Amino acid sequence: MTIAGHAGHTGQAGLQPVESYLSEVLAAIRPLPPGELGLDEAEGAVLAEDVTAAWPLPPFDNSGMDGYAVLAADVAAAAPERPVTLPVRGEVPAGDTRRHELAPGTCLRIMTGAPVPSGADAVVPVEWTDGGSARGRQVTFTRPAGPGNAIRRAGGDAAVGDVLLRAGTRLGPVQLGLLAAAGRGTVTARRRPRLTVMSTGNELIEPGQPVTPGQIWESNSRMLAAAARQAGFRAARLPIVPDDKQAVLAAIEDALASADLLVTTGGVSMGGEHDIVKAALHDLGTVTFRKIAMQPGMPQGFGAVGPAATPIFTLPGNPVSAYVSFQLFVRPAASVLQGIDPERLAATSATLAAPVRSPAGRRSFLRGTLDPSAGVVAPVSGQQSHQLASLARANALIIVPEAVTELPEGADVDVLVLP
Amino acid sequence: MTIAGHAGHTGQAGLQPVESYLSEVLAAIRPLPPGELGLDEAEGAVLAEDVTAAWPLPPFDNSGMDGYAVLAADVAAAAPERPVTLPVRGEVPAGDTRRHELAPGTCLRIMTGAPVPSGADAVVPVEWTDGGSARGRQVTFTRPAGPGNAIRRAGGDAAVGDVLLRAGTRLGPVQLGLLAAAGRGTVTARRRPRLTVMSTGNELIEPGQPVTPGQIWESNSRMLAAAARQAGFRAARLPIVPDDKQAVLAAIEDALASADLLVTTGGVSMGGEHDIVKAALHDLGTVTFRKIAMQPGMPQGFGAVGPAATPIFTLPGNPVSAYVSFQLFVRPAASVLQGIDPERLAATSATLAAPVRSPAGRRSFLRGTLDPSAGVVAPVSGQQSHQLASLARANALIIVPEAVTELPEGADVDVLVLP
Repeated sequence: MTIAGHAGHTGQAGLQPVESYLSEVLAAIRPLPPGELGLDEAEGAVLAEDVTAAWPLPPFDNSGMDGYAVLAADVAAAAPERPVTLPVRGEVPAGDTRRHELAPGTCLRIMTGAPVPSGADAVVPVEWTDGGSARGRQVTFTRPAGPGNAIRRAGGDAAVGDVLLRAGTRLGPVQLGLLAAAGRGTVTARRRPRLTVMSTGNELIEPGQPVTPGQIWESNSRMLAAAARQAGFRAARLPIVPDDKQAVLAAIEDALASADLLVTTGGVSMGGEHDIVKAALHDLGTVTFRKIAMQPGMPQGFGAVGPAATPIFTLPGNPVSAYVSFQLFVRPAASVLQGIDPERLAATSATLAAPVRSPAGRRSFLRGTLDPSAGVVAPVSGQQSHQLASLARANALIIVPEAVTELPEGADVDVLVLP
Repeated sequence: MTIAGHAGHTGQAGLQPVESYLSEVLAAIRPLPPGELGLDEAEGAVLAEDVTAAWPLPPFDNSGMDGYAVLAADVAAAAPERPVTLPVRGEVPAGDTRRHELAPGTCLRIMTGAPVPSGADAVVPVEWTDGGSARGRQVTFTRPAGPGNAIRRAGGDAAVGDVLLRAGTRLGPVQLGLLAAAGRGTVTARRRPRLTVMSTGNELIEPGQPVTPGQIWESNSRMLAAAARQAGFRAARLPIVPDDKQAVLAAIEDALASADLLVTTGGVSMGGEHDIVKAALHDLGTVTFRKIAMQPGMPQGFGAVGPAATPIFTLPGNPVSAYVSFQLFVRPAASVLQGIDPERLAATSATLAAPVRSPAGRRSFLRGTLDPSAGVVAPVSGQQSHQLASLARANALIIVPEAVTELPEGADVDVLVLP
């Protein structure tokens, strides 16, 4: 590892470190107010209450198998050579809400999930019987069943008052299932936050439409909306916004109605009057623009806009810069909006398959292909911030620290795994 | 590790091994026909064509920075103590489709992303100048810029004919961005498959509604629909289907109109006339039911129904059995429907934090909490197949092989990581 001694390299002065910017930004984001969500809108939400069992789980003693409800003592002596035959006095299917009583010396046919009749203390699986007589009037047992056999006790999964799920739990498939099983139709939780992304630039044309030289197809808004969904947001994209201050302000106004977080790309470089996003947001007052000690993604803006002080990230327009900035700064905002610790990209370390270079004083996030089983990461060819085709071949970001300007093949590096 | 010698244990005869069942099932699933998808529906789709660049990426030489387009030779001698001043003959913003020509001895102001004027061979960043005179008529350069400086060459990311994305690639955020950047409005791909899940049982009540003893709240359909979305499906759930053969057949008929794969839960145990799903599907002809050498999840059914031979899985009704079966058998079907190798749960190995038991002749998938950094996995309390609250505390499945009946604390085990 070559440690560069040029931390004071010209042009790097005044850059804000990545970690300090990230902390500052995340600290400025307030969690959404919790709401009462129906189960269908609760997928991916984060609980804002401890959910306790209002009823036992299961709610009543029920059969774990298809078979016969008995008094265990009545079949205690059953064996293949000494079978026991009992009269079948009825049938209890699953969902049966009648009240059944078992008389000693008799049995009831019972199905999986059906309530165990009072008086019965065991269920004998149908496989341990002759299956019952043709008209179902009697059944012969060839094996005994101990008390409690094949009975799932009320409260055996959770008792009344048990905490089923703690506040702060993200509601995945099983947690949703458990809420349903506990009878909850709604739950107090913070829903998945809504992110709106807008791309600005007179040069941008919708893919599928013809371009003339000087124009390019717009790619950032779809890419970032999809990345946002992957990160747990609900995401929408606005139509391309032209380089016009009023148009940008109108688009932001529009987006504020239905977004918990805004993301713009483009319009924030060094070009003065052409940096329309910067100009528009200066009027809104609370957005600040900085240079971060990183590559790609140096120019970043963050603030709050509108009556609800909706957080806004202004990401650079270069697609690779926009994507890397999103993963580092916007992704963890999702969990912060949901009131839990920021979730970041998975980190690992690996051995470099080729030498790399990095500017002094800036943390590089080079695009690489990680082979996790071999523990090796190779930088992809094409490390410039407009090289989206190269990014599409990568599955990881190789971190080169601020003070390092080059690393040889074989060096150990920290790596972020792309989702 | 205790290897049990009882592979021929009574009751285990005739069980189909997990791997053989999985292979059989996946081999029976045909990939969806590829379609021409718009970019918005292509998220999560799998390419069925090699996508090549029809235009160079970038499509034209453009400026990588805000600055001045020059002839490099004109500023070659520039230095702080020997500044060079040139007349500014115009401005090229991004999106400018006019044709600009640079006359030697002059310069043009140029913005990031704007096309480089013919005659220019370098861009000098605005930071290397005095920023231009008040009226923008001239600018003074204090550093030279070599030929090609800050110019992103046409084709520098991809040349015409380069393969951008191979058939078989899943379209994530960056791949969608790349398709957009390449101008593609549509792409030939296999969309995310649509899965419909239905839960059957007279005992089932929608959560939020009142129950009477004998009834329980339905939890499987929401759980499995959410798990399906996590696995890459688009998923829908049907209303609860009662234990009525005609109702089950009608629900399946209904679902077939809009599903690429069906999943049922419940109605497939040993109870004969009450196993309504089994009975209904017997009439449709091609669904077979087996016992798989696993726990939970022994009773499995698979086949094809309807005019399009839509694959159907009949999962057991116990929630833990249904969930584990889904992860093992249904999850990999998503990628098979998209024409690529089945994607399975991530596997790892860990040290057992407590002893476990398992029935002879069956592969157990015990619910556990995995600490990946410590490499330790602990079985959760409550390993019965109805114990959903226990499953909600787990993040992994501990595999106990068929021939093993117990494992001590400290044993090495294979573990599947739950998503």
